[in-house]
Amino acid sequence: MRCSTYKQQANLQNISILNAEKHFLTHLTKIATSFPKLRIVLEHATTSEAVDAVLSLPENVACSITAHHLELTIDAVPGQPFHFCKPIAKEPKDRDALRKAVLSGNPKFFLGSDSAPHPVNAKTARVEEFGEPVGCAAGVYTSSILVPLVATLLESFGGLDILQGFVSDNGRKFYGVPAKEGESVTLKRVEKGGGKVPGLIRGDGAEVVPFWAGKELGWEIV
Amino acid sequence: MRCSTYKQQANLQNISILNAEKHFLTHLTKIATSFPKLRIVLEHATTSEAVDAVLSLPENVACSITAHHLELTIDAVPGQPFHFCKPIAKEPKDRDALRKAVLSGNPKFFLGSDSAPHPVNAKTARVEEFGEPVGCAAGVYTSSILVPLVATLLESFGGLDILQGFVSDNGRKFYGVPAKEGESVTLKRVEKGGGKVPGLIRGDGAEVVPFWAGKELGWEIV
Repeated sequence: MRCSTYKQQANLQNISILNAEKHFLTHLTKIATSFPKLRIVLEHATTSEAVDAVLSLPENVACSITAHHLELTIDAVPGQPFHFCKPIAKEPKDRDALRKAVLSGNPKFFLGSDSAPHPVNAKTARVEEFGEPVGCAAGVYTSSILVPLVATLLESFGGLDILQGFVSDNGRKFYGVPAKEGESVTLKRVEKGGGKVPGLIRGDGAEVVPFWAGKELGWEIV
Repeated sequence: MRCSTYKQQANLQNISILNAEKHFLTHLTKIATSFPKLRIVLEHATTSEAVDAVLSLPENVACSITAHHLELTIDAVPGQPFHFCKPIAKEPKDRDALRKAVLSGNPKFFLGSDSAPHPVNAKTARVEEFGEPVGCAAGVYTSSILVPLVATLLESFGGLDILQGFVSDNGRKFYGVPAKEGESVTLKRVEKGGGKVPGLIRGDGAEVVPFWAGKELGWEIV
């Protein structure tokens, strides 16, 4: 009954996966201003409204953005289960707002990987002989290529110079975790045509399709 | 190059699968008012804006609505390929506007089946060993249960009395095609628990998952 009542309420208020993040911002604002010393990260922002809210709130509020949300829009999602994640990618204006926030170099914005290695069979709707088909798991897998992917994406929209801040410095600063000596990653440009991401990664009894499958990365870890 | 330019333009104007129908209404209005004797059907409307536009335009413009768009919202789509169709289901407010248009009994609104029996393997993302995964086909299959399904859906939101107008009379009237003698369908209420839609329909070398799989229909054809 509780579930049904929640669903009815959501319908009455027109809440959906498209605008839930926006509805959440009222609560975020209330919490952030009531507890000014509480560090809060809006994880995996996907909307222009979230970017605006984070910018307008005090220094205790930051925001993580995934690699895949810097690339995907809603058009690439419903027919492609490997692009289905929560929160779902939104409209071009939202992706543009995320890119702009990252490009600004504002330390409130940093990378959140949100990487979910669902095996291929969990990304396939499972048909039931006599019942409803079971849908696909939500999540995009980026971990195995994350830093080269972010470098490639940032370069595609003119942001390669803010790579270190976005991937490392901004988040460390917000959490108050200094970098340890010797912990670093060096990237180099890949040879033309040498950065192709595999279509399928075989692990221990499972197969995973990574984000960017079949596409070229411009960078690799040394 | 043309495709890329189109995509860039769409991004600049923030056009997506969510708002493309709304953007189309400007063109519909122009065509409908320029050619007042041309009968135009806005097929498979999914938005409140489309309903408003059809209501505001002269008698030469009508609108078809599918069975599944009277039930689905966007929340049920990205994780469930068997709910993926074009145009994609939108927000609760849009579904409510479609229901309201149907309930009004306004003869401008009638059923458009939009039934697409894609086999299960076309509804499964196909993984490529070295390339991008191929996405799922767009389409929902309702044909085999269409009239009982529409009766069941209409009854769920208080519209059983407009069944004949929505399914048959309104469309015939708009197209100017009178009913032929003896062409009729009679429905009866199913016995409690006897209307379950199969999870899978096996045809000639193909398997199809129908809409409403595993759920109960309230009506059946006599």
